[in-house]
Amino acid sequence: MSSSEELKKPHGLPNKYLDDLDNDFFYHFSYSRSDCKKKFGDVKIVVCGGSMSRMGVFAEKVAREIGHHQVTKEELSISRTDRFAFYKIGRVLSVSHGMGVPSLTIMLHEIIKLLRYAEADDPVIIRLGTSGGLGVPAGTVVVTNKAYNAFCEEVHEIVVMGKRVRRPSLMNQDVAQEIKSCQDDHSFKTVLAGTMCTDDFYEGQARTDGAVCEHTEEEKLAYLKEIKEKGISNIEMECSALAALTHHTGIKAAVVCVALLDRLKGDQVSISPEDYAEYQRRPQALIVRFIKHKLGI
Amino acid sequence: MSSSEELKKPHGLPNKYLDDLDNDFFYHFSYSRSDCKKKFGDVKIVVCGGSMSRMGVFAEKVAREIGHHQVTKEELSISRTDRFAFYKIGRVLSVSHGMGVPSLTIMLHEIIKLLRYAEADDPVIIRLGTSGGLGVPAGTVVVTNKAYNAFCEEVHEIVVMGKRVRRPSLMNQDVAQEIKSCQDDHSFKTVLAGTMCTDDFYEGQARTDGAVCEHTEEEKLAYLKEIKEKGISNIEMECSALAALTHHTGIKAAVVCVALLDRLKGDQVSISPEDYAEYQRRPQALIVRFIKHKLGI
Repeated sequence: MSSSEELKKPHGLPNKYLDDLDNDFFYHFSYSRSDCKKKFGDVKIVVCGGSMSRMGVFAEKVAREIGHHQVTKEELSISRTDRFAFYKIGRVLSVSHGMGVPSLTIMLHEIIKLLRYAEADDPVIIRLGTSGGLGVPAGTVVVTNKAYNAFCEEVHEIVVMGKRVRRPSLMNQDVAQEIKSCQDDHSFKTVLAGTMCTDDFYEGQARTDGAVCEHTEEEKLAYLKEIKEKGISNIEMECSALAALTHHTGIKAAVVCVALLDRLKGDQVSISPEDYAEYQRRPQALIVRFIKHKLGI
Repeated sequence: MSSSEELKKPHGLPNKYLDDLDNDFFYHFSYSRSDCKKKFGDVKIVVCGGSMSRMGVFAEKVAREIGHHQVTKEELSISRTDRFAFYKIGRVLSVSHGMGVPSLTIMLHEIIKLLRYAEADDPVIIRLGTSGGLGVPAGTVVVTNKAYNAFCEEVHEIVVMGKRVRRPSLMNQDVAQEIKSCQDDHSFKTVLAGTMCTDDFYEGQARTDGAVCEHTEEEKLAYLKEIKEKGISNIEMECSALAALTHHTGIKAAVVCVALLDRLKGDQVSISPEDYAEYQRRPQALIVRFIKHKLGI
């Protein structure tokens, strides 16, 4: 098939204007539509997480675990910009998304176009992250089954041309279950639970240790207990946008975060480097097992 | 003064709980209150920008221009985590903030506490960035004099414990003027103008080339023209949060962004690497002159 025919194939995305583009260029990755089929047609699983370096370490871990012929970050990197780390380990992509919804959705719009142009077969996007727990011990892994916004709604809101647009932020229940069932390591606890997404780490998560705080400790604790009672077991900064955009484009997704602290007990994240390393390992171990299961390894 | 006395000194921040903390730990930088006075007491200017690598290049440029004794990124780096790049060049900090408001405000809460605990003398925080222009040619540098949210209001909104909190997003007019007047390079144009902050790069900036688009080209152009008429010359993803949080904590701040394209002419950012390098140089050149002016060099 010629390149121009390739660029006219249906992509199934809810955007009719994509067909008018000569060769859609993804600015933050510096890849184009014409790159996709050949380079990414085999992709089955995209794992994303906040930090660039963590996604490099994760890429190397996946390579070792699935017996990939390339093993170092340098060999696995397919990054062309300084915006996101980008690794390909056979049928797995490992991508950074920075912190917060706006950074995540930049990555996500471009990765979703890439997957659809590539005609990747039923891909799954998994966010791997850290979070503040609510009534769960530090080190607990939470696989999100309900993604809530900061108003405790299963909705993600964006502003388009001065108007609020609300979309359901629905998680794929089957993938969440499948990931949870991959646990065979009894050294830590994994739960299926609700996760709240906020747009701010300090005031937005009711912390009292930011540069600004206009609420009281008592109000904070009452609020955190209230949302815990509504089924929220951890708070992070990306889940509802990931749920909404993947649901809206028909792509399966999951969110798997370790809790670094129990917010009912405090705000400061001051755990030892050893505990931090161990906690980070846990969602990674779960996702590696899911990857091997999906790839039949 | 003993360390415990140091930790009880007034910081002037609108958060009474900071005094109750043993030794406030900034999780995303991995510095503590007890580090601040000695390490950061001399800081005069903080320059921040989205990309980690760009802020490293900028740190080296500042070092050369002010004749600092350390010249390489490696020598200048004081980074302790993989979340933000962090460089100190004498009285100047160069810090990355990632993309979007949530990532920026994580950095900002921690840097503002650091500056206040350090008793830095009347510091200025400057964001250096890229943006989409509106009715200005690609390569134009915009020094923001009004920071608007996505509803075209000089307001930044956060959600605290389920309630919307609105704060004025006021830019410091003196610093904006002072930066603009530093231009002595007639190879490019610098304007003082309004900037809109959005939480999404694709739909949130009315682009028609995201994975999802539910508006028409005609609606997009009508909207962009409408906000242009209201005084907005560029769109980026951080300014209103920076303006609001610095205004609220009494710290001077500025936003200086180059326009990479004119959004009235298109959505795709596909400029040549040479133009990109030249455009990036422009706000950096302006800020380096401002730094030299401020430091009396």
